[in-house]
Amino acid sequence: MTRRELFALIGAAAGSGVMYQAMTSLGHALESNYRGPLALDGDPKGASVLVLGAGLAGMTAAYELRKAGYAVEVLEFSSRVGGRCLSLRGGDRYVELSGVAQECQFDAGLYFNAGPMRIPFHHHGLLDYCRLFRVALEPFVQVNHNAYLHATSAFGGKPQRYRHVQADLTGYVAELLAKATYQGKLNDAVSTEDKEILLEALRTWGALDESYSYSAGPTASKRRGYAVDAGGGLDGAPSSSIPLSLTDILKSRVWNGVFADGNYALLSPMFQPVGGMDKIAEAFRREVEDITRFDAKITAIHQNEHRVTVQYTKGADRQVTSADWCVCCIPLSVLRKLELTISPPMAAAINAVPYLHATKIGLQMKRRFWEQDHAIYGGITHTNLPIHSIGYPCFGYGEHGKGVLLGAYAISDPERFDFAEFSPSERIAKAVQWGSVIHPQLQSEFENGMAVSWQHNPSTLGCFSYWSDDVRRLNYRDLCAVDGRILLAGEHISYLSGWQEGAILSALDAVKRLHSHVLAH
Amino acid sequence: MTRRELFALIGAAAGSGVMYQAMTSLGHALESNYRGPLALDGDPKGASVLVLGAGLAGMTAAYELRKAGYAVEVLEFSSRVGGRCLSLRGGDRYVELSGVAQECQFDAGLYFNAGPMRIPFHHHGLLDYCRLFRVALEPFVQVNHNAYLHATSAFGGKPQRYRHVQADLTGYVAELLAKATYQGKLNDAVSTEDKEILLEALRTWGALDESYSYSAGPTASKRRGYAVDAGGGLDGAPSSSIPLSLTDILKSRVWNGVFADGNYALLSPMFQPVGGMDKIAEAFRREVEDITRFDAKITAIHQNEHRVTVQYTKGADRQVTSADWCVCCIPLSVLRKLELTISPPMAAAINAVPYLHATKIGLQMKRRFWEQDHAIYGGITHTNLPIHSIGYPCFGYGEHGKGVLLGAYAISDPERFDFAEFSPSERIAKAVQWGSVIHPQLQSEFENGMAVSWQHNPSTLGCFSYWSDDVRRLNYRDLCAVDGRILLAGEHISYLSGWQEGAILSALDAVKRLHSHVLAH
Repeated sequence: MTRRELFALIGAAAGSGVMYQAMTSLGHALESNYRGPLALDGDPKGASVLVLGAGLAGMTAAYELRKAGYAVEVLEFSSRVGGRCLSLRGGDRYVELSGVAQECQFDAGLYFNAGPMRIPFHHHGLLDYCRLFRVALEPFVQVNHNAYLHATSAFGGKPQRYRHVQADLTGYVAELLAKATYQGKLNDAVSTEDKEILLEALRTWGALDESYSYSAGPTASKRRGYAVDAGGGLDGAPSSSIPLSLTDILKSRVWNGVFADGNYALLSPMFQPVGGMDKIAEAFRREVEDITRFDAKITAIHQNEHRVTVQYTKGADRQVTSADWCVCCIPLSVLRKLELTISPPMAAAINAVPYLHATKIGLQMKRRFWEQDHAIYGGITHTNLPIHSIGYPCFGYGEHGKGVLLGAYAISDPERFDFAEFSPSERIAKAVQWGSVIHPQLQSEFENGMAVSWQHNPSTLGCFSYWSDDVRRLNYRDLCAVDGRILLAGEHISYLSGWQEGAILSALDAVKRLHSHVLAH
Repeated sequence: MTRRELFALIGAAAGSGVMYQAMTSLGHALESNYRGPLALDGDPKGASVLVLGAGLAGMTAAYELRKAGYAVEVLEFSSRVGGRCLSLRGGDRYVELSGVAQECQFDAGLYFNAGPMRIPFHHHGLLDYCRLFRVALEPFVQVNHNAYLHATSAFGGKPQRYRHVQADLTGYVAELLAKATYQGKLNDAVSTEDKEILLEALRTWGALDESYSYSAGPTASKRRGYAVDAGGGLDGAPSSSIPLSLTDILKSRVWNGVFADGNYALLSPMFQPVGGMDKIAEAFRREVEDITRFDAKITAIHQNEHRVTVQYTKGADRQVTSADWCVCCIPLSVLRKLELTISPPMAAAINAVPYLHATKIGLQMKRRFWEQDHAIYGGITHTNLPIHSIGYPCFGYGEHGKGVLLGAYAISDPERFDFAEFSPSERIAKAVQWGSVIHPQLQSEFENGMAVSWQHNPSTLGCFSYWSDDVRRLNYRDLCAVDGRILLAGEHISYLSGWQEGAILSALDAVKRLHSHVLAH
């Protein structure tokens, strides 16, 4: 018997609480409210459900509901699935709300993830669907110690290697604490026994010398890298590098980029589907395509005691469809513009949640100069320029041909520059211009690009939901309610805003609660 | 004109010094004594070279010398190329010095890198050959924050998640330093201006709360992970996790595993060839196979003023070959057992360098339980058990089938347990037994394994050279000398012991110096 079979047996015999305990005691510490593949018991007796939106939430709901015996119909605004799970390739046409169209001219084999681009190791729901649908994964390099940290006002504008800032700041912090420790300044905070080990740990961690100093020399170089690396043969001896100063590092504030990478959401390893994020959407598409109506632009969602009715246009036609229930995965930014029959608390909640705006820009380069000239293979350079970051492709390392850089991932702030105020070609020109401050090669190697400002995408009108603590407290439960015959799902109905996992876990929760509700009726 | 062409032009016009300056000023900061693909000028006029050993050093030397116009012959001890660059697959037969043979029974598609397994981003020589020979690369996950740190005497023997130890130790260090800072105890070490920014940085870095404490709560959980992660829908709120105690972490000494990953040699991103490390050896093989004699077991290397003569056996035959010059890439551990005509200083140096012993064990498992039960995708678990580490495969993430774990990577220490004292099957049994302390599943999921103790490999008699500072000072230059008509190359003639890059850079240096020497004669 496999462990999975064992768990299934325990689950069937004793309920999911006992099963989870058994899994945990055997090492399966699922620190998630995802509880493994959904298995809904009970016959819905032909109940029908309309699922609105064929993004990841909608397709998850449709797939699971159909599996549980429901008659499911999906309405999708656009002619494709995936929603914000969007990869752009040569030949793709992308049209914004204004009607401005971009024709993607990337070479074959290249792509750009215009929406989500990475999957944390703890997004168990998403990873389980990838496993189920056999979506091949490869690492997404979040931290590249050889990429740059850049601030226009720091270090004379010169980008600094990530590893230098990280090693040097760690070294200085370790040095300061070690000195305070052995000078007895921490005697009230640390026991004598701990003190000895702490000093040893700080020396190792900070790459401190014999006298607990962080300074130019072989010890620090073994951590941050050398002026000239160790090599082979007669002149192979390494030469030591010289640390940056503590003052310069502190003032630069480029450490924010390093520390953000220490957050649970971004810890290594992270993953991406081989060939583009939309391989996930494609996998779901195979499951729900036959029950999906594309190009269905919803105008109204009404309900009464017995039925949910949805009005939509398809081309020039006005159409109506109805079902017993509705799982609505339309972003709140769009939903609040529709005609809805819902309760006042849910209507208020739908209006209460703001959406973040963001622009992502993909730039095709004639050659992979970041690898060839800078030894940067994958990962991200952080900058305080309006492009925020430059992302290096996490596949095709060392290949001779072209590559597509992420030239900007700019989450807009009303106080700051917003790419979305410009036309796509202007956005691209600006990304090339700002990117060349860090990589001058961008100017000469640039060939073409794609710029996606999510607030101009007609089916999302924003990038993702932003939940302040106050809005969460006041509105979240209302948005989760079974409102008559309607439930909402999507990243906006989760504590994982902007993550595909939020969309999936939200849909699973909606499906489970809807199913209980249906069986109880 | 491409940058490469531009550089070539500058190089041709002004010499390599100016070229390197131009490259550096354009951002090509090659912090290595590797200077790009070798281009040797001058005609060797038919001079011949014997290259001994078809590992990476020997094949690099043979490839470059042939390209420069030399008549090259390679003698290789075994029937394959690559030396320690060895990947084992189902059907492979591996025989140790004792004559004990192992037949690899891994399923198709699975392999185990018994020698080197990772490539740092700064191993420019190796990466350039991969680019030249189009060896596809993928990330090697060195740091997996969800893998374990384990010490038999710490935390009641319970393995701890890497991210917990790392986040908690960082948090406590930041807390201690922040408190010392705002209590004025560092006023002599830090300026008032820096102090404010340092406090802000420490709060961010350490995930400290408002009062600069590191404690259970949402701030620390955002860094180390939650008791229950953020999810979707009604019950999606995360719940905070509880940090380990500083005392427990310090005493455990498991932080050594975390800090080692901060060394330049192991910084992310690291790489591996797709399909096995020996794809690199295979690529070189295509270039030199036609000039290589396999199964040539060298017994003597003699030289006089005019010629180098090498005696070897091939099966039952005794054979002799000779050339004008010899690049000898035989490990010192083997070389010192042969009959040699060399100068006394080089003979002394050959005898002076000790070799480290090491055992690597690959274990095939029925299923990828580390992914399915522990959410560990790639990376390494560190332990103080004699297996030292468990390595998780860095490909095939989420696949349904089997997988091969690295069940031990034990660099031997005379004071400690040495796997090599046991038979291969006993080594494997012990690796399964110790590994199951961390992953109990190892016992039931184990199918078969391969155990390679490098000191028992007849062509290496050790794993890699170990250079103490003293031995380096006394012997390194002698080993690099052009000794009459013989030069040595290999990882042992480098400052990168045990790394493939050391072998390659050493060979490039030997080839360059030999070529100058030949042209000067």
